[in-house]
Amino acid sequence: MEADLILINGTVVTMDPEGAVFSPGVLAVKGDSIVAVGLASLAAEIEADEVVDCAGQVVMPGLINAHTHVPMSLLRGLADDLRLDVWLHGYMLPVEKAFVNETFCHWGTLLSCAEMIRSGVTCFADMYYNEDAVADAVADVGMRAICAETIMKWPTPNANSYDEGLEYCQRFIANWKGHPLIVPAVGPHAPYTCTPEILRETARLSREEQVPLMIHISETAGEVETSRQAHGLTPALYADQFGVLDHRAVVAHGVHLTDEEMALLARKGVGLAHNPSSNLKLASGVAPVPRMLALGVMLGLGTDGPASNNNQDMFEELHLAALLAKGFSGDPTALPVREALTMATIGGARAMHLDHLVGSLERGKRADLVIVAMEGLHTSPKFDINKENVYARLVYAAQSTDVRHVMVNGRWLMRDRALLTVSEEEVMPEVQRVADRVSGFLVQREKSLLDKLVALGELEQREIFEVQVKARVDDEERVIAGLDHPDIVIVKPSVRNQYDTYLFFDDAMGRIRYREDYVLESGQVVESLYTLTLVGPAKEREYANSVVLSRFAYSSRADRSLRFYKEYFQPQRVMQLEKHRRRFRIKYQGVPLAVNLDQLTKPTQGGPFLEIKSRTWSKRDAERKAERIGALLKLLDIMPEDLVRREYADF
Amino acid sequence: MEADLILINGTVVTMDPEGAVFSPGVLAVKGDSIVAVGLASLAAEIEADEVVDCAGQVVMPGLINAHTHVPMSLLRGLADDLRLDVWLHGYMLPVEKAFVNETFCHWGTLLSCAEMIRSGVTCFADMYYNEDAVADAVADVGMRAICAETIMKWPTPNANSYDEGLEYCQRFIANWKGHPLIVPAVGPHAPYTCTPEILRETARLSREEQVPLMIHISETAGEVETSRQAHGLTPALYADQFGVLDHRAVVAHGVHLTDEEMALLARKGVGLAHNPSSNLKLASGVAPVPRMLALGVMLGLGTDGPASNNNQDMFEELHLAALLAKGFSGDPTALPVREALTMATIGGARAMHLDHLVGSLERGKRADLVIVAMEGLHTSPKFDINKENVYARLVYAAQSTDVRHVMVNGRWLMRDRALLTVSEEEVMPEVQRVADRVSGFLVQREKSLLDKLVALGELEQREIFEVQVKARVDDEERVIAGLDHPDIVIVKPSVRNQYDTYLFFDDAMGRIRYREDYVLESGQVVESLYTLTLVGPAKEREYANSVVLSRFAYSSRADRSLRFYKEYFQPQRVMQLEKHRRRFRIKYQGVPLAVNLDQLTKPTQGGPFLEIKSRTWSKRDAERKAERIGALLKLLDIMPEDLVRREYADF
Repeated sequence: MEADLILINGTVVTMDPEGAVFSPGVLAVKGDSIVAVGLASLAAEIEADEVVDCAGQVVMPGLINAHTHVPMSLLRGLADDLRLDVWLHGYMLPVEKAFVNETFCHWGTLLSCAEMIRSGVTCFADMYYNEDAVADAVADVGMRAICAETIMKWPTPNANSYDEGLEYCQRFIANWKGHPLIVPAVGPHAPYTCTPEILRETARLSREEQVPLMIHISETAGEVETSRQAHGLTPALYADQFGVLDHRAVVAHGVHLTDEEMALLARKGVGLAHNPSSNLKLASGVAPVPRMLALGVMLGLGTDGPASNNNQDMFEELHLAALLAKGFSGDPTALPVREALTMATIGGARAMHLDHLVGSLERGKRADLVIVAMEGLHTSPKFDINKENVYARLVYAAQSTDVRHVMVNGRWLMRDRALLTVSEEEVMPEVQRVADRVSGFLVQREKSLLDKLVALGELEQREIFEVQVKARVDDEERVIAGLDHPDIVIVKPSVRNQYDTYLFFDDAMGRIRYREDYVLESGQVVESLYTLTLVGPAKEREYANSVVLSRFAYSSRADRSLRFYKEYFQPQRVMQLEKHRRRFRIKYQGVPLAVNLDQLTKPTQGGPFLEIKSRTWSKRDAERKAERIGALLKLLDIMPEDLVRREYADF
Repeated sequence: MEADLILINGTVVTMDPEGAVFSPGVLAVKGDSIVAVGLASLAAEIEADEVVDCAGQVVMPGLINAHTHVPMSLLRGLADDLRLDVWLHGYMLPVEKAFVNETFCHWGTLLSCAEMIRSGVTCFADMYYNEDAVADAVADVGMRAICAETIMKWPTPNANSYDEGLEYCQRFIANWKGHPLIVPAVGPHAPYTCTPEILRETARLSREEQVPLMIHISETAGEVETSRQAHGLTPALYADQFGVLDHRAVVAHGVHLTDEEMALLARKGVGLAHNPSSNLKLASGVAPVPRMLALGVMLGLGTDGPASNNNQDMFEELHLAALLAKGFSGDPTALPVREALTMATIGGARAMHLDHLVGSLERGKRADLVIVAMEGLHTSPKFDINKENVYARLVYAAQSTDVRHVMVNGRWLMRDRALLTVSEEEVMPEVQRVADRVSGFLVQREKSLLDKLVALGELEQREIFEVQVKARVDDEERVIAGLDHPDIVIVKPSVRNQYDTYLFFDDAMGRIRYREDYVLESGQVVESLYTLTLVGPAKEREYANSVVLSRFAYSSRADRSLRFYKEYFQPQRVMQLEKHRRRFRIKYQGVPLAVNLDQLTKPTQGGPFLEIKSRTWSKRDAERKAERIGALLKLLDIMPEDLVRREYADF
């Protein structure tokens, strides 16, 4: 038999259905395929152009990373140890919105491919934006991948609306269908980020184009709970209604799947990518791997994106998967080494619907393989008492840096740890250049509370100046009686309990106020208003009668929790302030003013205080209103010694 | 200022109380100590003989492995994915009994030290046997270690009894006290493997000799439950009664500590070594790290022994600890990167009561440090937006193979990944030589069920031959009536339910019977007997009247569970057999015989059967008993056609 290449003297771990291990074994490659695999004696029958001596090494199928987002390697280590919403809405989304384009995806993909090849990965499933650029880079490097263009109900870096995304995906599929290494795919992001129409349309595209469909399902307990409440169904059952699981589907995560959902995935031949590092790091939990295997789910293993991992080291995931299954089930025999390695090879290939091509070393399959040195200190000594010893060395002891050579589709991508199809020297400076621009963007933003607020993307940029005065009063009722005057029209009275949380920073940065404003009627809360206000660093001006032109302020509805804002803004100091407010919006000789009578209840009892305020937009307007406020103070019998110059937050 | 050595241009991560990071920074070493550390400008004041450029690298304290058993590296990958008892009693203890001596400990320690240096560890806490040999090797290599001689109530490889162990430990302490690198210590193995006297005496030794005391506590839920039942106290509270926590104690594991126990450890200044990989792999669980930190426990991080890990890679433990704290608490902000790195450096030093010497890079401390390359693909790009970015790169992205140089006590142990004080070329063949002998021992043992049984260490080697006959009878009562005969004395009648589980192997290997034998009185179980019997491969001989000299058998009390034996012996096939037995021990004309009347209930209904048996020890005795059995058959009216030649297990 003729071959281009023969590997001799190594331990060939085939991961074939019989679990054959040939030691020493032989494997021959011709063109893009494996043409022979077996015991050493087979070598005599093969004439090969190149002979590679693999003594002391393991020859095994290339590792398969069943879920990642390769361009995100450019965001590795940008922000860690944050709540998911802070991480996503505070960092990932704003940065992606500002930076992700074809160039970003090109360099990010090259960095990830280089990293993955060096750790023994030959094939992966990607899900991101600008997948044309991703696929281009992957094909150039010579790796094998499913590339899924992500589609969701919100604008993405390369689509202003979902239909633009779908159109892009359709063109992308047309560009790549039939490529020997790239499998184009459609990626509805998740049930909760897609409308029923998106789920239905992406399922249709997958079916009509005969391409895989990738989707995130049941990553967090919160997702499951929200789905139950919104649809009366857990996420996989909900998504199934729209046909997304019917055709070569690959689901990521499945941390909180029910037995019924697992059985559904098994029945429909859906692949599932288990992402142990990412699920731990984001505190999502641990997927019930032994249960999924027992119910027949096709399981692969993935790193998830390098912004939430922070690496794409499949040896680490393999090791972690084997450990976690034991630690979580309380059963030290759960997910034994051979089953763990299955998930990272032929299991991953099955989960990605590529097992006819790759995942095991068998005659006729593509030559996607890695050669792993096993003579390091950390993989010594070598026991071969039973069939599991070699798997145990690979799963528990070997490191990604033990990978010596990597081949995909019959082509060497790495020899003796030197990358052959991607230049580290070229990629690294480009990568750092992007990172430096992202750093600059964030450093600038961190310096300005306003930019950080704007980065949340929901701020109505309402800039406000107010003229205002504050005074201590003896008797609230006397003030209210004073408002009963022919020059005064009470437009709208209201009674409120206000809970203000002030976040303090460097003086030069200003402060942020999170206000919970409960409007009361007969002592009952009838309306809840949440506002976030950025208050500028210093008073602008003072007029007669202690009337001040206040700090500038930006105000917006506060849709997120106080906890979110605290973690996102990272204040130096926090202060709580609670008060009971009687508020009167009045017109005094035609000038609109707000009159507040406040009783402080926390941190100290105090008051009552009178505040008179009015919004303003020009110097002349401010002067006019300051004058009117002064007149009103007289009318209400407020003496100069009662005036208070400090804000409540500075009491 | 004069120095022997100055490190320049690196990012110096000090782990000092202020969390200072100097980037670029400078660190100077003179003799065994750090004499200066600070910003780059400091370099101008220092004259040094050697200058090391650390551009693009991090200079940090050496990692501290707070719990391991270094010689066990020789058993790495020997047996994995087994139940704890199978792993321990089936593999570790028999192999240790047969192989562990000073030579074993010497080479095992060298292998572990070499592995640890290459992964950035400079200091560790060991607990094993022959600690004199361990300490010798560690001191030669130049690492820093606490070496604790393990003491327990059972014989150990170097002590036939606990007092021998204590004497050894006393001599060992005398040999090493005051050594610049080695801290000798005493290691009562665990509360459940030590008697109160051992706990009291080891505590006394620690106090009198002013040396640390190391102990495993609360590793598994089973240990806690057993302690509660036996002593009414959880393990740490129980152990505390004997003073073991009073003086420089270091506790390993603490997976299932109660709040009360954590508070006790905090109050008594006890160090605790968290071993995430080992606790997961052996399915012990996950220690409540955030809770322990909140209650003030001094936490270090350990790999545990390489037979249950299977490596001593502290970068992996660091990464895992950070992930697990999040995944288990459901809080992604739990154990942030700086706290995780603290556990692996200054926290570990505190836990080992060595923080006055090591754990951080501060003037006056010993020069125990590592230099880590940060320019790999997997640690790119580099963000420095906030103070946590550098810790995140070290905890989430860096690998042990990124460690370039290692220094302990001012001496280089590794430069550019080349070990300077231990020769891999010398160690590796010796290591494999020991492993091959262990392999030979186990391969031989696996071939023989008897050896495997003996290896459990509890078999009374009672070899038994029996002469026996079996017959089908119509009427049990008729047989019993027949026993009422002048030549027959009924010594002891009994009624039993017997549940036999047969483990089948290759025919040539024999079979194993696990019997649950419940003695009944008035239908109530009054005694439970568990026996394990190895039955030889073939019948030895047949006499007249189908009386056979049975297969040889070894029998012992079965102290372990059926599940244990199944997993340990790994039979090809298992069969259950249940019967109700009326048993009569009789003397027939002075010959002791057992007469059984058996009613089979599972797998098939059958019987009643009559069995007549007698133990025998010589050919002549067997012939005489066979003749007597023949006579008794006649007396009981049993016809030749009623005789049954098969054993129940072969029905």
